[in-house]
Amino acid sequence: MAAILRHDSKYDCLTCNTFLMTNQQYQQCLEACQACATACHQCAVACLNEKDVEMLKICIQLDLECAVICNAAATVMSMEGRFSDQLCRVCADICNACAEECEKHAQHGMEHCRKCADMCRKCATACEELAAVGH
Amino acid sequence: MAAILRHDSKYDCLTCNTFLMTNQQYQQCLEACQACATACHQCAVACLNEKDVEMLKICIQLDLECAVICNAAATVMSMEGRFSDQLCRVCADICNACAEECEKHAQHGMEHCRKCADMCRKCATACEELAAVGH
Amino acid sequence: MAAILRHDSKYDCLTCNTFLMTNQQYQQCLEACQACATACHQCAVACLNEKDVEMLKICIQLDLECAVICNAAATVMSMEGRFSDQLCRVCADICNACAEECEKHAQHGMEHCRKCADMCRKCATACEELAAVGH
Amino acid sequence: MAAILRHDSKYDCLTCNTFLMTNQQYQQCLEACQACATACHQCAVACLNEKDVEMLKICIQLDLECAVICNAAATVMSMEGRFSDQLCRVCADICNACAEECEKHAQHGMEHCRKCADMCRKCATACEELAAVGH
Repeated sequence: MAAILRHDSKYDCLTCNTFLMTNQQYQQCLEACQACATACHQCAVACLNEKDVEMLKICIQLDLECAVICNAAATVMSMEGRFSDQLCRVCADICNACAEECEKHAQHGMEHCRKCADMCRKCATACEELAAVGH
Repeated sequence: MAAILRHDSKYDCLTCNTFLMTNQQYQQCLEACQACATACHQCAVACLNEKDVEMLKICIQLDLECAVICNAAATVMSMEGRFSDQLCRVCADICNACAEECEKHAQHGMEHCRKCADMCRKCATACEELAAVGH
Repeated sequence: MAAILRHDSKYDCLTCNTFLMTNQQYQQCLEACQACATACHQCAVACLNEKDVEMLKICIQLDLECAVICNAAATVMSMEGRFSDQLCRVCADICNACAEECEKHAQHGMEHCRKCADMCRKCATACEELAAVGH
Repeated sequence: MAAILRHDSKYDCLTCNTFLMTNQQYQQCLEACQACATACHQCAVACLNEKDVEMLKICIQLDLECAVICNAAATVMSMEGRFSDQLCRVCADICNACAEECEKHAQHGMEHCRKCADMCRKCATACEELAAVGH
């Protein structure tokens, strides 16, 4: 993984294509993590301003936790960190847990929860794929 | 600012248009901060792997500091934080300082520094505009 | 500020004493920021679990924002960042705002708010002192 | 784990003692993570200012990655996050990896590496113990 960032789109060789693919995959996963962190924070704040906060407590707490782990995963990926894969596995788990909770409230018309659940599922998939490749 | 997230694209009124504009501006600034944090970390790691690290020390340090502040600004914006503007002002300053340093090395062909300087300048502009509106 | 970390407790000279004092002050401010971030998150979670969450909404939101800025300030200080002072000024402001809100609820017996307000005031003082020295 | 923060030092019952113990353990682990993040950033900056940066590249990169994961673990613990244990496992791994690298340079007299390695080992132990309890 150490060489990823030094391979740009100029070369035409098998190794470079592998690197390019990996690089692109990292970039997409990283951006999915950042978008998910944003959606989680926006969902948490919107939940706090709903009439019935009481029933959204777990949602708020999972949103906040998910945002922290997504941000850490994005940062470690941007540093080409050695523990990106391990962190992506934890990230996929919290994203799925958060999505599951948000989906309950999305069914009752909470738009911010629907959007958040959607971002969490996308992020979970991206993280699982990255961890599966086993860099 | 408290009501921003609750205004979606469904309404047609003056107040909502103001909110929408603001909302969009926040979203763009937030994403510029996240993209800048990523570019800064990628630049720092690439600098560390250059032959002449010695002359890139200041660049690495500014990259790291810039990434931390950009990430904090993005997070506070995603929470509709009251201190978004104040933080965006600090963010614009570190982004400009980092861009200035990166531009020196970009002149000598460092592609990661050129890309990082570009993202820093964009982020600085977005942050300055947001802070100027004075939410 | 660049030389701070290289001065340890072994030397006996005027310059070094200045550095030591500064170093110690940074370390204390940094630790106050970390302790404040922790107290804010603990307060936010405890607020979410109170019976009357409704009246604690603003408290939760300020807690979360304060924690993010405190963490960023601590990180930038640990990196000997150039923008430590500017960030400490924003940090002092959000800490005072958060303390003010928490103090209202502390008066009504909320222990986590009392503890959080206390940490916020200590952190604000440390940040103001650091920013005043004008490194 | 959900009830941890609501148990203070006032009660005398078996359950509460368990909660108190857990609470204390969390607090210690959280503080070890914060202290480790600080030591890692300070080590990275000190490494950057050493004469022979070249041989410290891996150390700097592990320092930075370790600091990010330690900070995330501390934040998630302060939120009583459900994924604290999983994150602590990753945190223990990166801490041990960082300590191993720092210990090499500590042998050659680098004081900041010795201090950083020490904090990393303490943090790894605290994280491992917490994860082992299996909250």
